[in-house]
Amino acid sequence: MNLKIPEKEFQRRIKNIQKAIRNKDIDLLIAHSNEADFANVRYLSNYWPIFESAGVIIPAEGQPALLIGPESETFARDTSCIKKIYKMIEYRESAQPEYPDIEVETFASVFKKVYKKKIKRICLSGYQIFPLPVYQGIKQAVPEAKIITDDDIIASERVIKSRWELDMLKESFKIAENALEKTLKFMKPEMTELQVVGFIEKELYLGGAEYEGHPQYVLAGKNSNHAIGRPTYTKLGRNNLIQLNIGARFAGYSSSVGRPVCLGKMTDKMRKLVQAGLDLHFKTMEWMKEGVNAGSIARRFFEYADKIGAGKNILYGPCHGLGMMEVERPWMETHSNYILKENMTFQVDTFLYCDEFGLRWENGVVVKKNGVIPLSDRFMKIIELEI
Amino acid sequence: MNLKIPEKEFQRRIKNIQKAIRNKDIDLLIAHSNEADFANVRYLSNYWPIFESAGVIIPAEGQPALLIGPESETFARDTSCIKKIYKMIEYRESAQPEYPDIEVETFASVFKKVYKKKIKRICLSGYQIFPLPVYQGIKQAVPEAKIITDDDIIASERVIKSRWELDMLKESFKIAENALEKTLKFMKPEMTELQVVGFIEKELYLGGAEYEGHPQYVLAGKNSNHAIGRPTYTKLGRNNLIQLNIGARFAGYSSSVGRPVCLGKMTDKMRKLVQAGLDLHFKTMEWMKEGVNAGSIARRFFEYADKIGAGKNILYGPCHGLGMMEVERPWMETHSNYILKENMTFQVDTFLYCDEFGLRWENGVVVKKNGVIPLSDRFMKIIELEI
Repeated sequence: MNLKIPEKEFQRRIKNIQKAIRNKDIDLLIAHSNEADFANVRYLSNYWPIFESAGVIIPAEGQPALLIGPESETFARDTSCIKKIYKMIEYRESAQPEYPDIEVETFASVFKKVYKKKIKRICLSGYQIFPLPVYQGIKQAVPEAKIITDDDIIASERVIKSRWELDMLKESFKIAENALEKTLKFMKPEMTELQVVGFIEKELYLGGAEYEGHPQYVLAGKNSNHAIGRPTYTKLGRNNLIQLNIGARFAGYSSSVGRPVCLGKMTDKMRKLVQAGLDLHFKTMEWMKEGVNAGSIARRFFEYADKIGAGKNILYGPCHGLGMMEVERPWMETHSNYILKENMTFQVDTFLYCDEFGLRWENGVVVKKNGVIPLSDRFMKIIELEI
Repeated sequence: MNLKIPEKEFQRRIKNIQKAIRNKDIDLLIAHSNEADFANVRYLSNYWPIFESAGVIIPAEGQPALLIGPESETFARDTSCIKKIYKMIEYRESAQPEYPDIEVETFASVFKKVYKKKIKRICLSGYQIFPLPVYQGIKQAVPEAKIITDDDIIASERVIKSRWELDMLKESFKIAENALEKTLKFMKPEMTELQVVGFIEKELYLGGAEYEGHPQYVLAGKNSNHAIGRPTYTKLGRNNLIQLNIGARFAGYSSSVGRPVCLGKMTDKMRKLVQAGLDLHFKTMEWMKEGVNAGSIARRFFEYADKIGAGKNILYGPCHGLGMMEVERPWMETHSNYILKENMTFQVDTFLYCDEFGLRWENGVVVKKNGVIPLSDRFMKIIELEI
């Protein structure tokens, strides 16, 4: 695969963020990523941590630096677009090795190298996952500086996708959708959820994925009512609803394609709720276009669900942001108050559930002037497989 | 698969930790896990978070509670041995949805429900990954309480494996080793690293894994010198060294089996370093048994490496703890000062590297009175596959 984000795009991202932090009177921004949420660091450097965590430090002026754990140096040098790379104990593995034989930097030594002025305001990004040791390391190095948290600065950059990013997302969805097609032919009632996961993984990597977009969902019968869940040794069985979500990652961009699937015939109750979900899903797409308020879409979603009798089956709003993470900012909720812009990307994620089962229709879309362009759209009808 | 940790084992764990926190005058212990390091929460509850994070709160007296994000309730109720479950915004996804339509608890309300006495001392566990929002949520609820961090309390429990845990680890290594056998037959020079990852994943799930023990390592040629790395679209090629590490997860316990592999013949330089690694690996195992000081093993490892001319090829010490995480406490480093005890489990992780390539011999072992019992031991010789 030759598709990848060019270096100049990474430089543009850094420059835009430097401009934003200067506007907010911030001296240094420090973004954090871990193995589960790799996005901010990858967005800025192309490096994505594994076992260890990582940070990117962006000064208001001058060159950024990548902050890594003690074992990732050769990997980071081969991967990162940011060429200043510092090893630090704060980014070590959760098992907390002490590495008495590896030389590491401290925040005090790194700050001196990346920024010549006095540090008065530091901004942390990635608040939800920002770990105490990194926070305390920063605080100790500049006790007199004011530390603020702000996820909007990077999110404002990430939210509108460049043409490169759209290419990566298209490829990521193509890989997932091809795997879906093969999986629908592969599934049999006597297989376990986890056996199907293995098949999906094989197809994703064969299709060109660099990793899974998220752990695959193959949740059968009662398990399908988990909005968030993990596949098990449960057999798919006959006439069960199966929540199938297939997600690839390509060049740092994640996809997920979700379909409710039945091996054999659905019961009437299933078919009714599956169809309600499908109606809601298509309606949501209809309502989305440049200029529309996100909250108004979420409110229409809840109203329409009530109208078709599915209001009590909803757990959360109709869409969430899509990009490097399969779930990223912004969410679309009833109280959201932002306007959809061209080249924002969303997952239209229609999850309905009751006590016995649940279902999810999920597709990626790109917001355009007159509506949305789907990133995935195959198998959008009641799926009852012959057995 | 019927093998699993029985409920009474989870209850025993909680009781032991309650005893330990009472001894340290702690009112509440709050353990944290995320999708990448799921171990503490799974160890205490059997629940493991995905997308969202999670916590377990253990009071000095009374019942523990599981703290989850707003979307994981049905999944947690089907999985957790801890029956008190509270949804909290602090454990939401990193995309920070606000869920205006879901009712959540606060730390103040949870504290009232789990502990009747005045809270004077709170202990946080999982320091390396403990996120700011959870820390600040706790602080806000009980501003007058003293907050300490302590990873030893849970680690002391986790470090000695019960017979159930050893059974899970054996199964986990069996799955990985079977996948290794098939992978050695599957690999061909024109395949990419990532295509091999797909094959491995399929074999792991077919073999009974519940997830990967860690992202698989298939690192060919220059990529093999990454102590920590990510597979790429690089072709395996002929006469390249390939760092192959296969890891399964079974019932919450992770394995990794590492072998340096060559398609065709190794160069003399490769073979010499691969053999040096193998010698070091076997020596390390010889030195390990109940009663031995961990630091002494690490020092002997560095000395022996110097003696055979591989001292400059070492990045870190010879072993790290093994259990739920494929890398967990304790590490074995030159300054370590603890004594090996029966039923501690380690990964003997012999990683050597130079500019052009790297190699890892890796196996799990159980410490016994007179030595170690390997959890994996197949293909422990120079591996040159016919092409």
